[in-house]
Amino acid sequence: MTINSDRKRPGRPPGTSDTRDRILASARELFARNGIHSTSIRAIASAAGVDPALVHHYFGTKNQLFAAAIHIPVDPMTVIGPLRETPVEQIGYVLPSLLLPLWESELGQGFMATLRSVLSGTDVSDASMIRSFLQEVITTEVGSRVDDPPGSGRVRVQFVISQMVGVVMARYILALEPFASLSVPQIVDTIAPNLQRYLTGELPQPAED
Amino acid sequence: MTINSDRKRPGRPPGTSDTRDRILASARELFARNGIHSTSIRAIASAAGVDPALVHHYFGTKNQLFAAAIHIPVDPMTVIGPLRETPVEQIGYVLPSLLLPLWESELGQGFMATLRSVLSGTDVSDASMIRSFLQEVITTEVGSRVDDPPGSGRVRVQFVISQMVGVVMARYILALEPFASLSVPQIVDTIAPNLQRYLTGELPQPAED
Repeated sequence: MTINSDRKRPGRPPGTSDTRDRILASARELFARNGIHSTSIRAIASAAGVDPALVHHYFGTKNQLFAAAIHIPVDPMTVIGPLRETPVEQIGYVLPSLLLPLWESELGQGFMATLRSVLSGTDVSDASMIRSFLQEVITTEVGSRVDDPPGSGRVRVQFVISQMVGVVMARYILALEPFASLSVPQIVDTIAPNLQRYLTGELPQPAED
Repeated sequence: MTINSDRKRPGRPPGTSDTRDRILASARELFARNGIHSTSIRAIASAAGVDPALVHHYFGTKNQLFAAAIHIPVDPMTVIGPLRETPVEQIGYVLPSLLLPLWESELGQGFMATLRSVLSGTDVSDASMIRSFLQEVITTEVGSRVDDPPGSGRVRVQFVISQMVGVVMARYILALEPFASLSVPQIVDTIAPNLQRYLTGELPQPAED
């Protein structure tokens, strides 16, 4: 599935690379301000002053547009799809098995660049978009299937996120050795039981105030 | 190496805030280039063109100077000291119990600022210093006490670091909710068994090549 299909049409196409950039800028602005779920292709098209069909033409689905906006050159559904098929008792293993090879690939570079800009605090919309992605997509998709302590919100999946983000940091950003040189299977196998405990293990109850 | 000895003027005290800054700049440069263990107070003093006694006067011990250079306004020994007294079977609990309250305090702000600059990739010496701290101090102090798989280096403690850095990211940098609002004890109690597994639990053996 390609996000950026630059298919040439007969005659002068209505979308130039300038149009494409304008759509992307509007998408980043709206995703950052309102999150993913509350942002429609129609609203993005309207903000960019183009027809919604053109947005679809350039970027495909809303998920694909979001991926392009956040510089993840893959559709989030390539991760979310398989997770939906995975029994909850295996997500602790399957999640890092899906994500680490993605991060290792050349495709991961764009994501690391986004993460750096979040961390530097220079681009607020990047931080908002990553937060939206983690909260709306991962938290909703995975979090809705696990049994959180009453009244505490979707905490289980957020502990999972904390471990996965920590792997990104230790391996790609801080490049700690030997961590950065470990094989993908060694990392996956080592963290999987901990992720699974966060998802389905017994967790301490939060103390009453 | 910058040697600035042209600053001495009669009638002024040998230590001005300018001198202090110069010591700090030399310290950052040498710590980043050579790590903590290979950098002496004497070398820093020499690079800054001052007497070693003045470095001690301003910053105390080498550890305290390192803390100042990396913008952690506490001596790393306040964390390392108690850890040395802690049986290895309790470090998974004691480590986050020491670190989270530090991060929550006002003192944690400087550290978050350093982390942001690491992530933005703008200040290479910050990244090198954090890497030195994690590798030389935490990895050596804690890692030397646990039983790593043969030939794999200090991997156990690095998985611990990955989880702790992930907590910092999720809570303070990305500010995921509800994660950012959970109580310190809830986070400590939830991650402690996972940290302890990394330190003393059974981990998968790395596959032979």
